[in-house]
Amino acid sequence: MSQDLPPPDLPFVLSQEGQLLKRSMMRELIAVTARPGIISFAGGLPAPECLPVEAWGEACARTLAEDGPLALQYGPPYPPLQEAIAGLMAERGVQVAPEDVFITSGCQQGLHVAGRLLLDPGSTAVIDQAVFPGVRQAFGGPGRLPRSVASDVERGLDLGELAAALRQEPHPRALVVVPDFHNPLGRSLDDATRDAIVALARETGIALVEDDPYGLLRFQGRSPAPLLARAPERTIYLGSFSKLVAPALRAGWLIAPPGLTDKLRVIKESVDLETSAFIQRALARFLSAGRLGEHLAMVRRTYQERCTVMLQALAEHFPAGSRWTQPVGGMFIWAELPAAGGVDTLALLPRMVEQGVAYIPGAAFAPQGAERAMRLNFSNAQPEKIRQGIALLGAALREAVGG
Amino acid sequence: MSQDLPPPDLPFVLSQEGQLLKRSMMRELIAVTARPGIISFAGGLPAPECLPVEAWGEACARTLAEDGPLALQYGPPYPPLQEAIAGLMAERGVQVAPEDVFITSGCQQGLHVAGRLLLDPGSTAVIDQAVFPGVRQAFGGPGRLPRSVASDVERGLDLGELAAALRQEPHPRALVVVPDFHNPLGRSLDDATRDAIVALARETGIALVEDDPYGLLRFQGRSPAPLLARAPERTIYLGSFSKLVAPALRAGWLIAPPGLTDKLRVIKESVDLETSAFIQRALARFLSAGRLGEHLAMVRRTYQERCTVMLQALAEHFPAGSRWTQPVGGMFIWAELPAAGGVDTLALLPRMVEQGVAYIPGAAFAPQGAERAMRLNFSNAQPEKIRQGIALLGAALREAVGG
Repeated sequence: MSQDLPPPDLPFVLSQEGQLLKRSMMRELIAVTARPGIISFAGGLPAPECLPVEAWGEACARTLAEDGPLALQYGPPYPPLQEAIAGLMAERGVQVAPEDVFITSGCQQGLHVAGRLLLDPGSTAVIDQAVFPGVRQAFGGPGRLPRSVASDVERGLDLGELAAALRQEPHPRALVVVPDFHNPLGRSLDDATRDAIVALARETGIALVEDDPYGLLRFQGRSPAPLLARAPERTIYLGSFSKLVAPALRAGWLIAPPGLTDKLRVIKESVDLETSAFIQRALARFLSAGRLGEHLAMVRRTYQERCTVMLQALAEHFPAGSRWTQPVGGMFIWAELPAAGGVDTLALLPRMVEQGVAYIPGAAFAPQGAERAMRLNFSNAQPEKIRQGIALLGAALREAVGG
Repeated sequence: MSQDLPPPDLPFVLSQEGQLLKRSMMRELIAVTARPGIISFAGGLPAPECLPVEAWGEACARTLAEDGPLALQYGPPYPPLQEAIAGLMAERGVQVAPEDVFITSGCQQGLHVAGRLLLDPGSTAVIDQAVFPGVRQAFGGPGRLPRSVASDVERGLDLGELAAALRQEPHPRALVVVPDFHNPLGRSLDDATRDAIVALARETGIALVEDDPYGLLRFQGRSPAPLLARAPERTIYLGSFSKLVAPALRAGWLIAPPGLTDKLRVIKESVDLETSAFIQRALARFLSAGRLGEHLAMVRRTYQERCTVMLQALAEHFPAGSRWTQPVGGMFIWAELPAAGGVDTLALLPRMVEQGVAYIPGAAFAPQGAERAMRLNFSNAQPEKIRQGIALLGAALREAVGG
């Protein structure tokens, strides 16, 4: 499934990166696990029931009726969207001027742009050992040396290990943090850990890249203030509408320390010129119609119910000695099977797909040390399917562990 | 207008690229020249009258009604869009299997992705001396050494100079070519020149990057076959819907030699994950409704009329000894003032903007040698405004040249 490509027989030379690139394991796994009829905990997809099909249609129609050709033209960042985002940031405890909200085509683009701003070939960044592959692509890759910090079900984030990684030579340039509802770990960082991260960043003079696509998806109450609110002088914050509204908008935002906007704009221009004016204008209308609050409340209720169902099913069906995170928001649970069982979740996957249930094996997120872990998405499947799927998976795992 | 930024006072280190980045001269000029009431020949904007507001609205509404939540979800490249693009390529004389059509978020992203696939730090690419800044950003930039080939109103492309640039050490990796309705030069390459470029590329073992956002905007008849049809083994072809349908779609395509799709997919994933499924689905509906043919016919008629009006006005009003390209498609005319006049189009711009007319000075496209040139966009202004604007500009230029 993840074998190397044969080197293409080409009459020209590829870059070193190009020569090294292999198929995307994550995408391939998701494709395999997306077969009809499969109960999939694999992707990171919002619940289809939560995608605002009707409201988005109205926002598009209004945009075209009110703005005419301007809605389809090239255009600068759209001020009403910047204002709406500044309003969302205020909910997270951050005061930002609308004109300082930098529009991106989503968090992945934010990671890519931040990586280019901060890292040279040979630079080091510190990332989680188990992390969404997009972070590794943006801050690792050929010629860069990501240094990783282990993070698991019980420890969350080990501050001692983090301090050592940040102080080690060669001096790292940046630390990438996903403070809320980490992908794939599902864990969040508490107030004290966030303060400690900021203190370490200040001590070592590094930039913080805060990847926050899930922070507003806390089931109850509010998440602790983001790193941006604690260290605005060194934090590049990334937000996204993919999980708040819809992935197909490909819209997000970035907030950086003052003085960087012009540089970010040139990088963004070189990557894709600009983010769709049509999407920006329609999204501003969707947000200004006051719908977001109600919409997010519905999303949070739906995800909380599904998460609760999955946690109950895990307790009921997974082998004794298994452990998993207990998320209070976001979309993912990270489960680890007992060490004694010798289960390899990557090796087990084809059989599980045959039996009609899918997950992403830990190995897709961590180069090592996650062989007996899996990421389980709880947002995309309906509760009954979650119960069925975890029961199927649990039965197979109990058999594998026992055998 | 294009002064350097003061270095930001930051508590962390930027990449070398980040430290060097300056404001985008092009964007700033366009912003300055976009003041209301100004007759602007500055941007590269489609005619507002040609943007399909109503048809796009219908395509969006149909997409949401027919596809429901799938239209707002993450999704792979949308096969009906790939098929429609394969159909467009057939019109350009290229046979491509729909599954080999790689969807991008526009030509700029195509340039960026191709640059990463082909160039290492320190690699050399050959580009036009006067070129859209996005090409320089993707194939030049800190640590890369673009080698440029002069191209002007009379010579078009100098094949001798090109041959020397391709044969020179260090050996270049790629040649970026805009064969049709070059931005900013407005010139197209004839059949013989295209064949000669292919022969040189084969001799020197380099990749061709064919940037073709305008090829289908030929006023009459068909453009000569693209490089892709002549050298499919080494050409990375970039197409875009920005000028064919609307810039705000941020959708385009890339066709590469076999064996590269998996590598390109990983690069694209690291840049922005994927191109909007909503836009892809709506665009496929717009194209499949059989509207594109009629739409493009209208665009071509409109642009031909505006181009003709501008060429007539240039002949009437520009100083004696001026020269300009005579485009047969696309959106731009490149005009050069007589050497004797000593006019600097960058220095002159603020005065012209005060008088109510704008253009992009040659210096925005070429680091040197284009001080008395300007790019004039003919697609965005209505014919009467074109006459007025060129008359204003011509009067000022005659005064400047005479003075």
